Amino acid sequence: MSAPTIDRVDPATPALPDAGVVPEVSFATSPDAYRHWRLEVDGEVATLILDVDETAGLVPGYELKMNSYDLGVDIELYDATQRLRFEHPGVRAVVVTSGKDKNFCAGANIRMLAQSSHPWKVNFCKFTNETRNGIEDATANSGQTWIAAVNGTAAGGGYELALACEKILLIDDNSSAVSLPEVPLLGVLPGTGGLTRVIDKRRVRKDRADVFATKSEGIRGKQAVEWKLVDEVIPKRVWAETVAERAREAAAASSRPVDAQGIVLLPLEPSVTDAGITYRHVKAEFDRERGLVDIVVRVPEGAVPESLEEIHQLGDEFWPLAVTRELDDLILRLRANELELGTWIIRTSGAIDDALAFERLLADHAGDWLVNEIRHYFKRVLKRLDVTSRSLIALIEPGSCFAGLLLELALACDRQYMLDSTLEEGAEAAEIVLTDSSFEGYPMPNGIGRLQSRFFGDKDHLGWLRREAGRRISAAEALELGLVTDAPDDIDWDDEIRIMLEERASLSPDALTGMEANHRFVGPETMESRIFSRLTAWQNWIFVRPNASGPEGALRRYGTGRKADFDRKRV
Amino acid sequence: MSAPTIDRVDPATPALPDAGVVPEVSFATSPDAYRHWRLEVDGEVATLILDVDETAGLVPGYELKMNSYDLGVDIELYDATQRLRFEHPGVRAVVVTSGKDKNFCAGANIRMLAQSSHPWKVNFCKFTNETRNGIEDATANSGQTWIAAVNGTAAGGGYELALACEKILLIDDNSSAVSLPEVPLLGVLPGTGGLTRVIDKRRVRKDRADVFATKSEGIRGKQAVEWKLVDEVIPKRVWAETVAERAREAAAASSRPVDAQGIVLLPLEPSVTDAGITYRHVKAEFDRERGLVDIVVRVPEGAVPESLEEIHQLGDEFWPLAVTRELDDLILRLRANELELGTWIIRTSGAIDDALAFERLLADHAGDWLVNEIRHYFKRVLKRLDVTSRSLIALIEPGSCFAGLLLELALACDRQYMLDSTLEEGAEAAEIVLTDSSFEGYPMPNGIGRLQSRFFGDKDHLGWLRREAGRRISAAEALELGLVTDAPDDIDWDDEIRIMLEERASLSPDALTGMEANHRFVGPETMESRIFSRLTAWQNWIFVRPNASGPEGALRRYGTGRKADFDRKRV
Repeated sequence: MSAPTIDRVDPATPALPDAGVVPEVSFATSPDAYRHWRLEVDGEVATLILDVDETAGLVPGYELKMNSYDLGVDIELYDATQRLRFEHPGVRAVVVTSGKDKNFCAGANIRMLAQSSHPWKVNFCKFTNETRNGIEDATANSGQTWIAAVNGTAAGGGYELALACEKILLIDDNSSAVSLPEVPLLGVLPGTGGLTRVIDKRRVRKDRADVFATKSEGIRGKQAVEWKLVDEVIPKRVWAETVAERAREAAAASSRPVDAQGIVLLPLEPSVTDAGITYRHVKAEFDRERGLVDIVVRVPEGAVPESLEEIHQLGDEFWPLAVTRELDDLILRLRANELELGTWIIRTSGAIDDALAFERLLADHAGDWLVNEIRHYFKRVLKRLDVTSRSLIALIEPGSCFAGLLLELALACDRQYMLDSTLEEGAEAAEIVLTDSSFEGYPMPNGIGRLQSRFFGDKDHLGWLRREAGRRISAAEALELGLVTDAPDDIDWDDEIRIMLEERASLSPDALTGMEANHRFVGPETMESRIFSRLTAWQNWIFVRPNASGPEGALRRYGTGRKADFDRKRV
Repeated sequence: MSAPTIDRVDPATPALPDAGVVPEVSFATSPDAYRHWRLEVDGEVATLILDVDETAGLVPGYELKMNSYDLGVDIELYDATQRLRFEHPGVRAVVVTSGKDKNFCAGANIRMLAQSSHPWKVNFCKFTNETRNGIEDATANSGQTWIAAVNGTAAGGGYELALACEKILLIDDNSSAVSLPEVPLLGVLPGTGGLTRVIDKRRVRKDRADVFATKSEGIRGKQAVEWKLVDEVIPKRVWAETVAERAREAAAASSRPVDAQGIVLLPLEPSVTDAGITYRHVKAEFDRERGLVDIVVRVPEGAVPESLEEIHQLGDEFWPLAVTRELDDLILRLRANELELGTWIIRTSGAIDDALAFERLLADHAGDWLVNEIRHYFKRVLKRLDVTSRSLIALIEPGSCFAGLLLELALACDRQYMLDSTLEEGAEAAEIVLTDSSFEGYPMPNGIGRLQSRFFGDKDHLGWLRREAGRRISAAEALELGLVTDAPDDIDWDDEIRIMLEERASLSPDALTGMEANHRFVGPETMESRIFSRLTAWQNWIFVRPNASGPEGALRRYGTGRKADFDRKRV
């Protein structure tokens, strides 16, 4: 496996002997296997307790002291967010708190960051950001309101976790504070949305945000409320009851149905080899020589249930949910473990009628809590694609079923190629179908749909496409309508695709990442997209600068007793 | 002087013996001194002809072949944009074209980029971006519509220059194309707004933008029009007359007054020493040990003209214009030449009544073309501050005049400190005054005002502040109203400011740059702010990556006949 290489650890902070051995990352876990979190469900309120096992870091070389986290801790958090939505629909409020005394969470582990390679750091930040976006999505779209019960100091990523919650309650014990000490202590940014959420979501004044983010000890008590950094400071003696009251209040305001029965998310258990990853409905084959992953998403034959009841009975076997989980897991694994596979080809296989039947089923039962969860989950997985730093190419061939949900996969790609076999008599032809999914169902991180983005500002054309919804569109028509990049015929197809993939593989991986991050987002921005663009892009730059990651940089010198030695030139 | 250091040039591209000697950059020039441009004014239409003198690069070590540019070429272009607005108000359309055969412009010189330090590259891109924003500002707000008459190949920055124009006309000669070859040839992004303008302004479909930006030879003829990359392709035989016709059409649609008489922009001729820069109304003193610049902006006594006629007679001596020019020049010089002076203190001196009198004068004559130009110019200079990678601190002391225009300078800062001398009897007190300038006059690059940004989403408070406009606000009141960060009294002032500045100077310059770039922009984004945030931030990251700037990177290997050797890991 092409494991990310690890920077040398600063000699001043000698690492454990086996530091830097990065394992193949798996994102599979479940509450009974958690090492760092406890999930307690009590009627309408769930409590998620962070109690990090400091000896259980994902990678050797650091101890997770002070309730700090690494990717492994966040994989568990992500799993909990998913189970709360699918397995515990009765939960209407989620309280995040700490199991440690006077210490809510110290954020991302600094030794871990210091020893990590650049791609590892960037991918880690991306995943943690996405989980925090998911927490906000649960609050906004799932009737599960998250409340941070900050019962000790919340520093850096610890405060950023609280920022993802709808409300932040801070214990008033004369010591617990919230802080973003990354700039003063580490010479990097709070990279999990902190700067953006402080100003955009909490609406902290920019000069106060500046003071706050340069003050390593943070802010506590009344000032934290006055500056809008937290919603409430609560005396220690009434802490537990006030937190419980706030949770009850949030639960009472929830739109969640009262009598919903959860489903169970069983382990996916894909077959993972050096040649690829195979799930039930998704198969990814690696071509290491050409730097490619060939992903095929299959719609099963005759598996469309007939009623809402049947959907619930199928639970995690219901294809739209099953395939979403598989795509999610695949994206995460490829991002973490397969850095040199720079181009992902996305294909589909199955009957368009089946794909459309699933689409109708989801539309007909959009008001059902489980269907709602599936749709929002598919939305989140598509958003992962939007911010994935790989070239995405959709190949639309005969036998494919880019219709409904699956057409969104193609529209998320950087390019779409559709085989036009109509010249050859009797040949099977590729077709695509536009549905409501492409017009409203699945907004990108910047708040607009992929079709709206593709034809940004061109309302006439979007209106025209509306009228094409539901019918089968041939390659020639798709080209004419602007839905595909090119539509070569049988004679040209193989050569054109081969040359295109070879050219792509010859380009600078960094330039492609920057180019794709720009082209994929036209027009408006939202807090979520601003975190990805403005904040993350600057953080990535800072991460590779000697002032942070060089041997004398702040990130590497932290905790050594030696101050960082900065190049003082402003860029 | 702390000149930017220059990376070593790839040994495979041996540089001239004195390559890499970076001079102190001055931004002063005038049409008679241009080496690279010719400005021809003919009634309502001006023509700006790019005819680069390849031997006249700003820095030794490269030749400006193929009408490529460096900072020196762009300094002349910026000067031309300013003179067109102030000296040639009769010009209603500006045609940009090339003086070379079959070659419009090859963009930024690659040898120059390859030999430049990282700060130089970033600052160069920032300045060129700002000039292109200024071209759009002239089209939108000055009735001077820019038309790119692309009479040869426009590659990279050459096409980006055309993109800044309202219309792009391309000659149809079977060879001239537009292209963005940065990704395929150089492993970097088109860094002067190219990617963003292609999708946001020209509304090229993202998959086509992807194809275009990876196709080094570019696109020409009908396809360039169909893909919206240019507005029109024009046969060679009718080229000159069609360009002239398009210019006449644009001129006819202009809102510019017909009989306006221009003013003359005389050289500023500041005194520049190692200790600072002194203009008539602006003085900057350097404290190299503490990494500071102390900037004082003065309002002259009793210099307020009484009529519009007098304003025109004063011309470039009219204080609002004079001080704007001086601030503009100072910002550009400090950015280019003083990289280690990381904190700019901004103070003012003069009578509040005078500042307010100038403010009223500008408001009363807002409809006049010259006053309109001055206001938009001040807006552009403030925008430069917004994207300046230095910590900006306003110090508001007795004797200062942060009122009207000048209060915007304080609001552009990362923090504002106001001395509260009211405890001491008989002491002179600092005061500030809110005016319309802070409510609407001067939007930031993201389209909202600095006050609106400061209290983002808080309409109630903005409404409250409206009612405070016009009156003198004390330090205690300013603190209460949220207009300043802190208001220490006489006893604390010196220590608090000293400690704050020391702390600032101790932080990582890179982390500060990233933090400030995030905090200064809350809420919405525009194309202009997206270029600065999304595009530039990614570009900065790419510029420091070995795949671009390392000895085997694409930028360094270009033209050597050797291919770049990429680290294929995707980040």
